[in-house]
Amino acid sequence: MKNVIVGQSGGPTAVINGSLYGVVREALAHSGEIGHVYGMVHGIEGFLQDKIQDLGQTLTGEDLELLKVTPAAYLGSCRYKLPEDLSSEVYPKVFHKLEALEVGYFLYIGGNDSMDTVSKLSRYGAAIGSSIRFIGVPKTIDNDLVKTDHTPGYGSAAKYVAGTVREIVLDSSVYFQKSVTIVELMGRHAGWVTAASVLARKYEGDNPVLVYLPESDFDLERFAGDLEQAFLKTPYVVVCVSEGIHDASGKFICEYGDEAQVDNFGHKMLTGCGKILENFVRSRFGVKVRSVELNVNQRCSGALISATDLEESAMAGSWGVRAALAGENGVMAAFRRNGDRPYRMECTTVQVDDVCNREKAFPREWITEGGNDIRQEFVEYARPLILGEVSRPVKDGVAVYLYRENN
Amino acid sequence: MKNVIVGQSGGPTAVINGSLYGVVREALAHSGEIGHVYGMVHGIEGFLQDKIQDLGQTLTGEDLELLKVTPAAYLGSCRYKLPEDLSSEVYPKVFHKLEALEVGYFLYIGGNDSMDTVSKLSRYGAAIGSSIRFIGVPKTIDNDLVKTDHTPGYGSAAKYVAGTVREIVLDSSVYFQKSVTIVELMGRHAGWVTAASVLARKYEGDNPVLVYLPESDFDLERFAGDLEQAFLKTPYVVVCVSEGIHDASGKFICEYGDEAQVDNFGHKMLTGCGKILENFVRSRFGVKVRSVELNVNQRCSGALISATDLEESAMAGSWGVRAALAGENGVMAAFRRNGDRPYRMECTTVQVDDVCNREKAFPREWITEGGNDIRQEFVEYARPLILGEVSRPVKDGVAVYLYRENN
Repeated sequence: MKNVIVGQSGGPTAVINGSLYGVVREALAHSGEIGHVYGMVHGIEGFLQDKIQDLGQTLTGEDLELLKVTPAAYLGSCRYKLPEDLSSEVYPKVFHKLEALEVGYFLYIGGNDSMDTVSKLSRYGAAIGSSIRFIGVPKTIDNDLVKTDHTPGYGSAAKYVAGTVREIVLDSSVYFQKSVTIVELMGRHAGWVTAASVLARKYEGDNPVLVYLPESDFDLERFAGDLEQAFLKTPYVVVCVSEGIHDASGKFICEYGDEAQVDNFGHKMLTGCGKILENFVRSRFGVKVRSVELNVNQRCSGALISATDLEESAMAGSWGVRAALAGENGVMAAFRRNGDRPYRMECTTVQVDDVCNREKAFPREWITEGGNDIRQEFVEYARPLILGEVSRPVKDGVAVYLYRENN
Repeated sequence: MKNVIVGQSGGPTAVINGSLYGVVREALAHSGEIGHVYGMVHGIEGFLQDKIQDLGQTLTGEDLELLKVTPAAYLGSCRYKLPEDLSSEVYPKVFHKLEALEVGYFLYIGGNDSMDTVSKLSRYGAAIGSSIRFIGVPKTIDNDLVKTDHTPGYGSAAKYVAGTVREIVLDSSVYFQKSVTIVELMGRHAGWVTAASVLARKYEGDNPVLVYLPESDFDLERFAGDLEQAFLKTPYVVVCVSEGIHDASGKFICEYGDEAQVDNFGHKMLTGCGKILENFVRSRFGVKVRSVELNVNQRCSGALISATDLEESAMAGSWGVRAALAGENGVMAAFRRNGDRPYRMECTTVQVDDVCNREKAFPREWITEGGNDIRQEFVEYARPLILGEVSRPVKDGVAVYLYRENN
């Protein structure tokens, strides 16, 4: 009887623990085929330092349910890239450790860098004739993994963005005064998270009236023209931008302030594009302007988890365990959409080599011609992913989350 | 039979509409004594432009319940200060309009600037022998009104800060790497909102380990020493600071970057103190550092409304109407605490002249000697205010809020 080991890698999400829950629950349910369920603390990096926990021992039934609704990575995460050269001494080291633990099934929850880890380990394993099966479980708020309809974590980030932008829109229209509110959202390369801001709209012409993604070149003069047009319709203009918007030359808008911004300690200030645009609007239009950066709460808020996303995350974890037991190796659990109304989704497996180190950009055809808005096709795609509320236990007025005690 | 008029003024909060709900509901319940319930759109400023709505007509029963859980100011707000000189022509203008509407009871929901409006109108009214009664209903996330145990709006802001900081703490401890996360919170003069970050702690020594309020002078070198001490206890240091922290000379920390920060358009960049401290930590310690500014969501998030705060806000509105009917004038509804365990609170009235244009600072004796933490007395004071969850109607994955259609 072989053991399972599971790790989390890359940036946190609101539901990466939902996938961990799925893996642990499914593995524990196969007590005839699976022995221990080990967790790597801080991913493969921690594993190399023998940081592991026996999750069957540490997670009681109650803890497991709490784990499911706890945002951020319970096991801790890492950003450790295995060497490209499979003859590196790291690989035998990993495999010796896995064999010592009698691991038969290795599950890794993460984004495309983490899938790279799964790819390399499965290729090395094949080369040495190992029987250990390596399975990827997708996770990223960025929704930029190929070969899957969407990624676990995206739905909750999208729901957080939609709900929070909705409230910023209310806040921004309180005073009877022309104003611009710029909301800077996550997404260095892909605009999926920012696009979700259009889900905040409650009627035709509602804010945010302007939305800019990195998939479309940004131009300050065109932006000024867009604002002028927007002011014809509403005195309160809310603009949502991805942190990674750039001009036609590829220069990031957030770099526009670089030369000038050195602080009192002589160091370059890192400013977001929202701040740059805020200053541009102030100097050009002389209106009230504010920029808001939603920051890490997009990926770690447990207050607005999508029930759909959470259930799918758990399902992806379970599916990964079942795929491993069925003999699959070097694959990632993926989602295939079978319908929009009603929304129907099923799990499938894809080759991890086809996923790792690639990025799925936001489709150019879902961006309007002017590059300043998102088309209805995206709303149809994304709406089902943010549906459903998740209730959390609360103590003393603050949500109760699960903590890892050791390591 | 006289009419009621009600307005909202100053910055939005998550529950200012809770007070409006309380006023409207209470007024409508006194159909024998009160005729119409008018709403000023955009406060006294909009009223002077005849922007009013008959709320008994526009708000159906269902709308009224939705109003209660809608953040930001439904009626719209203003930042309009009436002239100090009571012989200004504005005063007869206001009173002619009030008389034309047969208003007997004037209720104004707001902070200390709004109480100034109530004070001036009631004094002018007394001078001309008007029978109109002017009543203030307190509102501010800043909790800086005197003569009341706390203000409606503070509990929800505190709950949002505690819950959000809790999640940022989880997020910041995912990687096994020394790091500093600086959370910048609202509060230019008073530290009440920032102090609420300690309610995020779940165990002794938990993050945020350092908290700085404007009521205590801030010093960069002492801060560096505090960080060194903190690193002895945890690799993940979360620091919460008020936007208004300043040094012993009174200079705001957010002004430390001023001379250097001019953007490409030749304009001064407005940077928060969080960004300044982020850069300081990076240059001094060379560790991973991030700053997060929670921004307007502290005052407009409907996702983490405190049920206690919401009920009290509604109660303050009702109390205001009852006080007006009982003949009071130039007073503000206030809260008197009658016990902590169990928490017991009652409404009372205080002279609005004693409240307006004054600020209640965070008590210096609730800040630790080193100026970097908050004492348990505050936790005892604030905990009851953030208790209780509020459920909201949701449609298409996003909360449903009430909109004002006209004006």
